Amino acid sequence: SAGAGFSVEGWIKAVWEFCKEDSNRIKYSLKVGLAVLLVSLLILFQAPYQVFGTNIIWSILTVAIMFEYTVGETFNKGFNRALGSLLAGILAVAVAQAALSSGHVAEPIIIAFSIFIIGTVASFMKQWPSLIQYEYGFRVIVFTFCLIIVTGYRMGNPAKTAMDRLYSIAIGALVAVLVNVLICPSWAGEKLHKELVKQFDAVGDSLEECVRKYLEDDGSNHPEFSKTVMDEFPDEIAYKRFKATLNSSAKIDSLANSAKWEPPHGRFKHFFYPWSECVKVGAVLRSCAYEVMALHGVLHSEIQAPYNLKITFQREIQEASSRAAELVRSLGKDIMKMKRNLRSRTSLLKMVHSSTLRLQRSIYIHSYLLTSGHDYSPDNSNSNSTKPLSKQLSHNLSSALSDLHAHLAAGDGNGGEGMLPNSATPPTAQNGIGVLPAAAESYQEHLKKQLRRQHSWPSREVDDEFEGSIGVDFLPKMKALESTASLSLATFTSLLIEFVARLDHLVEAVDQLAKMAKFKQDDS
Amino acid sequence: SAGAGFSVEGWIKAVWEFCKEDSNRIKYSLKVGLAVLLVSLLILFQAPYQVFGTNIIWSILTVAIMFEYTVGETFNKGFNRALGSLLAGILAVAVAQAALSSGHVAEPIIIAFSIFIIGTVASFMKQWPSLIQYEYGFRVIVFTFCLIIVTGYRMGNPAKTAMDRLYSIAIGALVAVLVNVLICPSWAGEKLHKELVKQFDAVGDSLEECVRKYLEDDGSNHPEFSKTVMDEFPDEIAYKRFKATLNSSAKIDSLANSAKWEPPHGRFKHFFYPWSECVKVGAVLRSCAYEVMALHGVLHSEIQAPYNLKITFQREIQEASSRAAELVRSLGKDIMKMKRNLRSRTSLLKMVHSSTLRLQRSIYIHSYLLTSGHDYSPDNSNSNSTKPLSKQLSHNLSSALSDLHAHLAAGDGNGGEGMLPNSATPPTAQNGIGVLPAAAESYQEHLKKQLRRQHSWPSREVDDEFEGSIGVDFLPKMKALESTASLSLATFTSLLIEFVARLDHLVEAVDQLAKMAKFKQDDS
Repeated sequence: SAGAGFSVEGWIKAVWEFCKEDSNRIKYSLKVGLAVLLVSLLILFQAPYQVFGTNIIWSILTVAIMFEYTVGETFNKGFNRALGSLLAGILAVAVAQAALSSGHVAEPIIIAFSIFIIGTVASFMKQWPSLIQYEYGFRVIVFTFCLIIVTGYRMGNPAKTAMDRLYSIAIGALVAVLVNVLICPSWAGEKLHKELVKQFDAVGDSLEECVRKYLEDDGSNHPEFSKTVMDEFPDEIAYKRFKATLNSSAKIDSLANSAKWEPPHGRFKHFFYPWSECVKVGAVLRSCAYEVMALHGVLHSEIQAPYNLKITFQREIQEASSRAAELVRSLGKDIMKMKRNLRSRTSLLKMVHSSTLRLQRSIYIHSYLLTSGHDYSPDNSNSNSTKPLSKQLSHNLSSALSDLHAHLAAGDGNGGEGMLPNSATPPTAQNGIGVLPAAAESYQEHLKKQLRRQHSWPSREVDDEFEGSIGVDFLPKMKALESTASLSLATFTSLLIEFVARLDHLVEAVDQLAKMAKFKQDDS
Repeated sequence: SAGAGFSVEGWIKAVWEFCKEDSNRIKYSLKVGLAVLLVSLLILFQAPYQVFGTNIIWSILTVAIMFEYTVGETFNKGFNRALGSLLAGILAVAVAQAALSSGHVAEPIIIAFSIFIIGTVASFMKQWPSLIQYEYGFRVIVFTFCLIIVTGYRMGNPAKTAMDRLYSIAIGALVAVLVNVLICPSWAGEKLHKELVKQFDAVGDSLEECVRKYLEDDGSNHPEFSKTVMDEFPDEIAYKRFKATLNSSAKIDSLANSAKWEPPHGRFKHFFYPWSECVKVGAVLRSCAYEVMALHGVLHSEIQAPYNLKITFQREIQEASSRAAELVRSLGKDIMKMKRNLRSRTSLLKMVHSSTLRLQRSIYIHSYLLTSGHDYSPDNSNSNSTKPLSKQLSHNLSSALSDLHAHLAAGDGNGGEGMLPNSATPPTAQNGIGVLPAAAESYQEHLKKQLRRQHSWPSREVDDEFEGSIGVDFLPKMKALESTASLSLATFTSLLIEFVARLDHLVEAVDQLAKMAKFKQDDS
């Protein structure tokens, strides 16, 4: 009993949390209760019952079916129900008159045949691509037609049945619409804006989270890839929200579709608010989101750039990504507030571009690092370079690189005079990547660890097959993997740069929306 | 009139095409027509009408609302309607008895209050995450409860009203289910498998198309990026299909949800077919699809690797991607045929891995190309290297690289003895990228063209701002862009390699499905 009491308590807590999360849920529930109550009173009270009779039960059905979460959706369903019922009523009365005038034997045959035809045609039409949105309307046509014509056949007065039904549907629709619009209305347009802003925030946050984790990851506790696929990272809160946005294009579409049905209201004052522009902004945002998805893929890839290499570009990557995230979130805020702040936006965009350019320059300066991982290794036991060609190559390149390293180290010793004005100056132990023998050794060790981690790919059997079929061993495979590992940093930065490039288009799309929706200028 | 006649003709043609595309559409329509006809006959014929009376109109409503495209969905909706009606009936009878025994004054008050409570509670419960799938059931509870209790109040016998209603709903449900299952049934499980296979094909085809276009693209007619966002590439047929699959996770989910309701049938002979495994396979496939999306992003990126560079890796990229695409399609075929062909799958996987390894090796061998774009340029007018440091660096590195180039050229001259056993040997004009003066010049020109193309990013104003704020001009920006351009090839190949890495998990997921669904072994 004590156990059951505890679970009830937990259950009440869960319900309470659920209500607190979004108070509109409880409002919606109370509104439905009120709407069905109001329409039921029409039968419970004597006066309206004497006017309308039992036909009023159709009002109850209408309210229960039509009452949706948002005003736009309710209008949309109401339109479908009204037009569907009207069309079905007209058709039914016409067919019933024709059937009546054709004699007693032919009447039921004509009626049965017409039911079959209407059912077939309406079901076919609702599958037509441009009519799919009126699916519910066609369903209404089918059952309303059948109901009217069948009861008309038995009661003898199809026109009266049709009129009674239309009356009661109109009453139900009116009650549903009034309750929905007058009492704490929930507008689809408002929800659409909130959803868009949520997606902007999710993309911005997820980008930052992804970059932070990438730069933090020193390979010490790398979870397996399979978890990536199944999304089981407890520390990636932003990513979870973000992933949901990728699959929510249908939600944006349906909200925009509902919003079109809503009259001007609140801050959406003018007619013909450009809801379709919101959908476009969502599409462009999604195209940015795919880049973040790819960044996330690099973050959890099995082939990782060595930590020391990441550290070299840390500051530039961090700066570019945090500014880009800031821009994305500020775009979201502009949409939320329905304001255009051209000045702050331009300056943000400039900052994003300049830090991206700084990242590009830094990569240019350090580009040798991305491909030279195999040259300054002190222990060449693995490179079994039997051919003089590759030996020679290796020697020449590595001598040039040690020159370079020496110069870099010197430049850094002199207080970094101009060489890397904007790059981070990490602790000395990590600074000379592979330059000092000690560092080089630790780097080598790190790489081996890295490779051991790649247990699942490429798999063992494939290695054997590959060695056998090619029969060339002048290039140890470890080296090839190592080189690809360094290039994974290039991939990460390229994707980040591509993300920034797409931001231009995002800014454009938001500007287009701001223009068409006449956002207020905000020069604060 | 002639014009109208023509448009009618075109319209008929369109309808005909629509039917031919999927003959199930016409079958479904005829089935709906038949179902409503059958249920209407219960009223049109004298004998059943005398048994059931006008209450039978509820059967018509049930058929029209319950009749869905697939068997599983019909069962699901039928379950919702049946259970909802049953619960509402029990509740209504109980409340009505209580109201009746409380006297004439209290009766309508109790009834009104109960309607409000039921409407509110049911609407609240249907928003609860784990109950959302029974949304329709809660709707049924609300209107059935209101209908029974209100008509019961007016007619005086709520228990009889409830029973009549349940009878007629049961009849309607029976007709809908029988017609749906016995006449050309459309199974959700079958559709789910077809949808999955379609997605496998779309991913495979799109990968191939993307790689083909990437390797073909010599920068001569590069469309603007904005078109990428809006998907207006007329020549990317596979991509269009592919893009649709990315947004169709909801479709897979709902089909799997419907399939769970279907009894064993056809080739899905055993109970508890692992439908949720199909959803998992879809999720893993989507994680592969995101990589293809990123590849597509690189394809249409404004920063492009020079054509000559692409050509160097052409054969390896092509081989790896076409084998990967073949593997993806063969996995799809296995699911379609519900067969496991371990032997052919293993050999395909081996081939994919070995060609990916070859690609990695080729990148390792040529990795200097990816970052050395700035070193062998004959006209150094732009590099205004005022600092002796960078001059020195540049000199050392470039001397090492010319050594390398010379060796490469020599190796190639000797019939490519062992150096690049598997790499393509493109025409000589393109082979020595920037090695021979003539080639270097054309390469340089190409780069300039490349940079001219980047009109929109980084934008002009930002450039100015950047130059001003940093005040460092020792590194021309063109060079930075150029370096990033070459690294874009590294990005493309890294993403391709990551795609292949994820294939392992896709194979695993399909194997898991095959095991749980007891696919037949196929060792042909």
